[in-house]
Amino acid sequence: MKLKVKLLKFSAGRPVVIINEKFAAESSIHIDDRILLKSDGKSLITVVEVAKDFISRKEIAVSTEVAEGLDLKKKSEVTFEIIPQPKSVQIIHDKLNCKILSKKEIFTIIKDIVRNALTESEIAYFVSAVYKCGMNIEEVANMTEAIYKTGFKLNLKNKLIADKHSIGGIPGRTTPILVSICAVAGLIIPKTSSRAITTAAGTADAMEYLCGVDFDVDNLKKIIKHNNACLAWGGSLGLAPADDKIIQVEKLLNLDPKSQLIASILAKKLAVGAHYLLIDVPYGKNAKVTKKEAEGLAKEFVKISKKFGIKTQCILTKSEEPLGNGVGPALEIDDVIKILKGESDCHLLKKKSILLSGKLLELTNKAKKGKGIDLATKILESGKAFEKFKSIVKSQGGKIKRFQEPKYKKIIKASKNAKISEINTKKMNMLARIAGAPLDKLAGAYLHKHLNEKIKKGNPLLTIYSESKSELEHAVEYFKKEKPLKLK
Amino acid sequence: MKLKVKLLKFSAGRPVVIINEKFAAESSIHIDDRILLKSDGKSLITVVEVAKDFISRKEIAVSTEVAEGLDLKKKSEVTFEIIPQPKSVQIIHDKLNCKILSKKEIFTIIKDIVRNALTESEIAYFVSAVYKCGMNIEEVANMTEAIYKTGFKLNLKNKLIADKHSIGGIPGRTTPILVSICAVAGLIIPKTSSRAITTAAGTADAMEYLCGVDFDVDNLKKIIKHNNACLAWGGSLGLAPADDKIIQVEKLLNLDPKSQLIASILAKKLAVGAHYLLIDVPYGKNAKVTKKEAEGLAKEFVKISKKFGIKTQCILTKSEEPLGNGVGPALEIDDVIKILKGESDCHLLKKKSILLSGKLLELTNKAKKGKGIDLATKILESGKAFEKFKSIVKSQGGKIKRFQEPKYKKIIKASKNAKISEINTKKMNMLARIAGAPLDKLAGAYLHKHLNEKIKKGNPLLTIYSESKSELEHAVEYFKKEKPLKLK
Repeated sequence: MKLKVKLLKFSAGRPVVIINEKFAAESSIHIDDRILLKSDGKSLITVVEVAKDFISRKEIAVSTEVAEGLDLKKKSEVTFEIIPQPKSVQIIHDKLNCKILSKKEIFTIIKDIVRNALTESEIAYFVSAVYKCGMNIEEVANMTEAIYKTGFKLNLKNKLIADKHSIGGIPGRTTPILVSICAVAGLIIPKTSSRAITTAAGTADAMEYLCGVDFDVDNLKKIIKHNNACLAWGGSLGLAPADDKIIQVEKLLNLDPKSQLIASILAKKLAVGAHYLLIDVPYGKNAKVTKKEAEGLAKEFVKISKKFGIKTQCILTKSEEPLGNGVGPALEIDDVIKILKGESDCHLLKKKSILLSGKLLELTNKAKKGKGIDLATKILESGKAFEKFKSIVKSQGGKIKRFQEPKYKKIIKASKNAKISEINTKKMNMLARIAGAPLDKLAGAYLHKHLNEKIKKGNPLLTIYSESKSELEHAVEYFKKEKPLKLK
Repeated sequence: MKLKVKLLKFSAGRPVVIINEKFAAESSIHIDDRILLKSDGKSLITVVEVAKDFISRKEIAVSTEVAEGLDLKKKSEVTFEIIPQPKSVQIIHDKLNCKILSKKEIFTIIKDIVRNALTESEIAYFVSAVYKCGMNIEEVANMTEAIYKTGFKLNLKNKLIADKHSIGGIPGRTTPILVSICAVAGLIIPKTSSRAITTAAGTADAMEYLCGVDFDVDNLKKIIKHNNACLAWGGSLGLAPADDKIIQVEKLLNLDPKSQLIASILAKKLAVGAHYLLIDVPYGKNAKVTKKEAEGLAKEFVKISKKFGIKTQCILTKSEEPLGNGVGPALEIDDVIKILKGESDCHLLKKKSILLSGKLLELTNKAKKGKGIDLATKILESGKAFEKFKSIVKSQGGKIKRFQEPKYKKIIKASKNAKISEINTKKMNMLARIAGAPLDKLAGAYLHKHLNEKIKKGNPLLTIYSESKSELEHAVEYFKKEKPLKLK
């Protein structure tokens, strides 16, 4: 069957076609199905959107990705095929019945995800299957390799490439501090971070208050060459396109099966060519994992990393509150600047940043065992780490600026003389998100007191910031209802 | 944040908005996420599509559903909110951990599906959860009620409304024959059918060779009033919108959890007001279920139907081959016409149609116990059933026409003197689909011999039909490779 092409001047980030609703119903094609479009010997898998009146039965509208992929001129014709279910679908079905997958089967799924042959829903079935049935070490290693091999590789070629990762959940940016310290010590740290998924800010969101974070490969390499490091967003580099899609589906249900978490992190570290890897695993009531889960995770990380020649160490720390004072992009990066400048504040964040930096310096033999913390402290206090940070920010097209209060704020005061008995980090993140973070860089919350500290009645406990009056009001309501801070 | 509205003259069947890609990344909004659009006190949940160059950061393009829902004029502005995860998401997460859901929780999920608040991927998680954890009788009953109550009701108000359903998988159209016979006997059968999901033709696809199948409620009621029956497509009536969406997601992986199957069927029967229900449950190697599964299914069907005042009987039949000679829309409806006209062919289809009709006549007390088959045979042989069928086809805007060979065909001949030892119905369906069914009404396969029949070398075994030369070739290749028929 031939269809007349209607070119949409619209690039959807994936090859999208729009067909007539009645034609779709008769052909048993549904929204988000995939069809194979063919023209002049070329073919392309496309995602179906369905429209009622925009398009006739004999037409097909195509996004620019399709027009480019098939070299379609105006008014040219295409034929299409309803694609038989990709092999992956049967494999996913098998995994849902808890079958152990072979290397070939895992590669089939990952390749199909990358070439758009699986719908988001099919990926959700895969995530469910892995969540319900788990994966053994061999499967996780194969998953890691498949994600790595279908992604982009940075190819820096240096034995001293090191990386750091946090499994997340606790507000507070140790990464910019660690990267600055370790780059001064001579490590190469091509740090690419994510944006916030469920928190108020990812490292990329926080850095973006000061400078750019989205670079193409050539520019990124220049930044790294100049500084031994970068603090960029990994999203547009395509280091692990399969994983990017899987994460998007996982976050819908806040699912993060252990095996997928490990494969996702290691594949990206392989892609930047890391030989050394330090993983921050916060555990505890407010973190993503319990102590026992953290220990299991650490063991698997080390075991699987070894298969790929990465020397990995996991640092398990009990984490019960935000590390700095700020929760929100600009507030969190301001805490970083405080520490780098030597202002006497944010002790928890300072301590943890030095701990992680020290461990990474020991892991890479830049410091002798037991001497990493000393070296890290020395570099931080010398001011060289701040100089390095300023240099990275400059290379990334920005400059240092401090937190400036947005239009609206609300200071919440202590209702009695008391001690801070609990700070729920998930609720603190949600509060900052309701106030507008991460899109509103200045939005968020500032903690005047930390856990177990005393406060006097009427003294400021928390300041909530927002560029929007209504969002501030919503955040204040949320604070009153959900009580992210408890006094005793 | 305010966005300028760009009206798309494009109705997507669901409220779709398109936003700028960079803006989306910074706001942590992804393709297929839902956002709440607000304008002048009205609000609407919309599905996000992302575009690169088609739209600026301060604009939002909206489909006609959004424009109408929010009464947007050209160039008006809207604000939006990233919607907090609907409550359903946590409930689905709980079900994935095998929690038994309350009535309230099930209603929450079904309502969220209907109002577009859940993405297809979230529905896939729900289907996975039900597949892995099952549902108890109470949950299935609540699911049935929720799907029924969120759907459209036909409101015919007649005590004699009966319906028939097949859980499917075996080619052969008993439905038009049963509907014609039972309507002659005085039952009201407002039969709505689906289109093909994995087979070569649904009853709606087959009927469409002769007449229209897609009617609005008023016209459908006229057709039913005139004939005591209809043979229409249920798709556009909205009898069970939640189920329509769930089925779309289930079919991706060919998952059909038992509890969902039961709820789906019963909700639609409640919607047409059926008081009597006959369910055809084919079992065996080529069917969807084993004998044991069929028995379990039958028990649950009867138990849950009772809760809703529907008298239900399940007919379990061992099914190992297509019932008629044809596989494909026009070929299958031609088998129906043969039987209604009394042509001596398609014995299996005739026998099963009479059996099912007889059982339904007994269930509804139109025939005494044990006398249903006699009555059904009498009505069929009197020619009255054919008259009824012609009348339905005429009311639905068509007329009887016989199968006409399409442009291309290939007769496959027996390679030796032999007996037909196996006919794989799944592969027969796939063969017909590859030849172009169900979109190409004439495409499909015609079986010259049935199971256990003898054939002489060189005699025709199967004829494959298609409107497309290349599709015919693909089908022939498939036949050679997959051998849907085996000779011994």
